[in-house]
Parts: sequence; structure tokens; C-alpha cells
Amino acid sequence: MCVLGLGLIGGSLLRAAVRAGRTAWGYNRSEASVRAARDDGFDAGSDLVAVLRRASESSALIVISVPMPAVDATLAAIAEHAPNCPVTDVVSVKGKVAEAVARAGLADRYVGGHPMAGTSASGWSVGTVDLFREAVWVVGTDDGTDPAIWTQVARLALDCGAVVVPAESTEHDSAVARISHLPHLLAETLAITGDAGGPLALGLAAGSFRDGTRVAGSAPALVRAMCEGNRDALLVALDEALVLLGDARLALGETGSTAALVEAGHAARLRYDEQDVWEITGIVPGEDGWLDRMRDAGRRGGRLRRL
Amino acid sequence: MCVLGLGLIGGSLLRAAVRAGRTAWGYNRSEASVRAARDDGFDAGSDLVAVLRRASESSALIVISVPMPAVDATLAAIAEHAPNCPVTDVVSVKGKVAEAVARAGLADRYVGGHPMAGTSASGWSVGTVDLFREAVWVVGTDDGTDPAIWTQVARLALDCGAVVVPAESTEHDSAVARISHLPHLLAETLAITGDAGGPLALGLAAGSFRDGTRVAGSAPALVRAMCEGNRDALLVALDEALVLLGDARLALGETGSTAALVEAGHAARLRYDEQDVWEITGIVPGEDGWLDRMRDAGRRGGRLRRL
Repeated sequence: MCVLGLGLIGGSLLRAAVRAGRTAWGYNRSEASVRAARDDGFDAGSDLVAVLRRASESSALIVISVPMPAVDATLAAIAEHAPNCPVTDVVSVKGKVAEAVARAGLADRYVGGHPMAGTSASGWSVGTVDLFREAVWVVGTDDGTDPAIWTQVARLALDCGAVVVPAESTEHDSAVARISHLPHLLAETLAITGDAGGPLALGLAAGSFRDGTRVAGSAPALVRAMCEGNRDALLVALDEALVLLGDARLALGETGSTAALVEAGHAARLRYDEQDVWEITGIVPGEDGWLDRMRDAGRRGGRLRRL
Repeated sequence: MCVLGLGLIGGSLLRAAVRAGRTAWGYNRSEASVRAARDDGFDAGSDLVAVLRRASESSALIVISVPMPAVDATLAAIAEHAPNCPVTDVVSVKGKVAEAVARAGLADRYVGGHPMAGTSASGWSVGTVDLFREAVWVVGTDDGTDPAIWTQVARLALDCGAVVVPAESTEHDSAVARISHLPHLLAETLAITGDAGGPLALGLAAGSFRDGTRVAGSAPALVRAMCEGNRDALLVALDEALVLLGDARLALGETGSTAALVEAGHAARLRYDEQDVWEITGIVPGEDGWLDRMRDAGRRGGRLRRL
């Protein structure tokens, strides 16, 4: 298999794939990253065409692990030099990548992926072989998914120590807007409102403010790329949050009560704490109705641990 | 000194005061709590009149450590049985308590306090002698503050291992609305919006959602009491947050950018991380202009470590 982009995610993936016994090589645009990967004993190069031709000759699985802005150019190179290889990706938004894949004419060979792992650090040097251990790895179940490629992508995730959650692109994007992108916008908002109270307010801040603003410490460029790359789904989640907060504001002003928001929020957090994690078994990719059954299992919180 | 209410805060205060070498006794309405305190070797009773008469005979400092709804009745008892004792409190809102104190005719003998410590647990049994160690303890600086009583209250806080931040009631309430009550409302909102994504969304949730919703796990009654007890100041903070989020929603929808919110939020969080904690020295309670100087120091992030 072949990993295009050797940053935190791609670099960790190359390490984990090799440890799992796979023949895997990587590409990075930057010579420095390639040298760093080679110094650590990995097979890497900065000649994209050569890397893709090698993939094409062995029908290797290609993993796109570049930032969203570089996805189109990467897909164009794959379409030119390795059009018959199976392709997946690890980009944090799925709808936009699927559209780009379709524009590049590679939809038949593509199954999207998104490992829910990472930190605010970036680059080859911060990658680790265990980054995906017990992480959730979404594997796409859009209409027309090729069961053989789906199986390859799911096996890669499992080989890396992750568990697989099947989901359609739009479902994935809606979910991460709610549980990853909205939290960032709320954290930024809280940080600004607290800071507006000056040193007195910041000096009184304890756990609730510290935890509630933690991700506002992430690099603005990364937060913007995540949030703006998932605009449509994030707008839906943000509008829901605005309605909840606006209603709470009215209730507090008019009746003095915060009961509706506080009780619903507490019940919601309990459902998160007590969520039932269960294992998906007995669905064979390619058998009749397998895509629908995978999607349904993903919606109900199922995870695949073996295939 | 005499502690009225032996829950988490009052019970911890009684323990810490005794360890600091003070003669201290407590009152609690519940016989069971009184027995528990006595079993742990502390001087406690459930006869409020007897406890207050004893305070009156020794001019003891009285600490009100009951929930906000019980404050008026407690003040009425103090006014009847120990009207000449100095009085402080540890209630989490200050403006409302100051109003109740004025209604009870005890304003001359009162200096408010608020130790920024506690957990979601409650009752004598969860108290600890070290609850206030290195905690911030706000001591009130409203107009007309008696410097001798202020010094008594500040010394109590220091004896318990806390640092003292001087602030007026309204400033305190505005600050905690921003850094303690707004975080709760945002956490509830995030919990509901994430949960609306169903098991798929909750199953993909990682650090940003977990941290951003943590305080939504607090008991709704406690969250409501805090937030609703500080309504006016919380409405100001909530309106600011709504404007920030509303503007961000418009910008994301119209231009696709989250730059304004994300960059301001990141800068604000950095100011929180890098806040300058400095020690207040050289202000003697009672000397000319001491109240103004204390307030100014509190506003600029100063803390008193000795007196």
C-alpha cells in the first residue's frame, strides 16, 4: 500500500501498516519529511509519479493523507498514473472529498475513511505507531461502494488497531459537525466572553472554563480548515445551538428559569456517558443488502472489530 | 468562629479552621450531619439559637454556608440572636446576598466571601480539610466595608490555605457569570446538539466533545441554582456569547470563513494561559483609600497571600 502525505496521520499510518506486516511506502512533497521517514527506516520518496507507478504495478491501496486543499491535485495525479488502484483517504470531511473523487473519475475505486485520532501537532516527527489504537475509524458506505475495496479499507483500519464505524459521507459530516466542529466554535466563544471580564474574571476561572475553552488553544489555521471544510453540516449544528441558547436566554430573562436547557443537557450528557458500544458481526461485504445493514449498524452505534 | 451549614463548603471550612488552631463550631439543620461531624471529632449542634447565642457571647465570626434559598431565614436568626457578630458567607453569588444582608439590617457587620472551590458532590462526608488549598477566595470590597471585619474574613481565607482576591459584589457576579455560569449553559447546549446526532455522533465524539460537555454532568439542581441566582450578570454574558455566535454563523454562511471568531478565541485563550498572577502587598485595611486600592488590584489580577 501507498500513503500520500506523511504528516501526523499519514506518518502514523505508514508506521502502523509496516508493523502490521504490510508492504507500505510513502510519498511526501517535502524532501525533509522524506529524509526523516527514511532515517527512521521507512520506504519513502518525494517523486509522486514514481510512487504512483509503483502502486499501479502492484495494484496497491492508495491512501490520500494530504490537507483538503491538496486533494484535487493528488486525485488528478492518481487518475493519470494509477487509475486502477483502490483509493481511500483520511481527510476529516467526507462529502467534499467524495465530490472531488467523482470529478476525478475515480468514484468506482474509492471508499472514504476518517480515523478519529490526532492532536494539534503536525509533521512526520510527531506521528506514532499507536496513534490509531482503539480509535474509531469511519469507513464510507455511500451508494455504489465496491465491497472488495471496502473490505481492504476496513482491514487497514483494523490492522492499525482501530475499530470501524460504517457511515455515509453526509452522515459522517453531520456527526463530526456536532461533536467536533461545534465544540471548537463554542470554545472560542467562551474564551472571548471570559476574557472580556479582564484579569479579575480570568483569575477566578476554574475547571469549567479551563475545560470549556481547551480546544480554543488549537492553532487557528487547523480549526478554520476543519470548520470551514464542513460548512453546510456545521451551519445546521450551529443553528440548532443558537436556537437552544436563544430560547434559554428568553426563559432566563422572562421567567428566571434555566430548567429546560439544563435538564435536557444533563440527560444528553448521561446518554453520552452511558452509550452502548456494541460489536457489529455477521454482515459480509458484498452479500445482499450489506450496505444498508452496515449503515444501519453505524447509526445505532455499532463498531466492527474484525472482518 | 461559627459555621452555619455543614455541607461540602461549610464542613470543609470547619475542618480547615480547626486545623489552623481556631476555636470553631458548626450548626446544621440535619441531625444526621451534626452526628457525622461530631463522630469526626468536631463541635457541632442542630440548635441554631444556642449556636448563635454562643457566637454572640464571644463575638465570634459567623460564616453563612447555607444554600441561597435559606439565606434570608439564617440572616433573620442572626439579627435576632447575634446582631453584633461579624458576618461573612461562602455563597456563590454576592449581589443577592448583600441585598438580603441589607434587608436584615446587618450591612455594617457583613463582608461577603466566595471560595472558588467545590465539586458536584455535597454533604459533610465529602468535605476535606484541604479543599481551599491554593484556591481563590473572593472577599468583598463594597462601599462601607468595615476594615476590621474585612481583615478577619481575609485571615480566615488565608488560614484555610486560600489566596484572597478583593472584588465588589457586582464585579464578582459579572466575573463568575463569564467563567463559571456561561460555561455550564454552553456545555448543556453542546451536549444536546451532539446527542441530537444519535448514537453515530456520540460514538465518534472524542476530546473536544468530552471536555466541552463535562460540566453538563453536574446535577441540574446545582447548575440551576448557580445560574438562576446570578440572572442579571448571566444575561449580559449570554447576550455577548449569542452575538459572537450569531456573527460567526452569518460569516460562515455568507463568506465561508470562521476567521474572526477563531482568531479572537485563540488570542483570548492565550491570555488566559499566560495570565500574570501577582501578589498584592502594601495595602493596609483601614488606611486612606484602601478599598479603592484593593478593588483596583483585584481588577488587575492581584492576589493577597498574607496580611
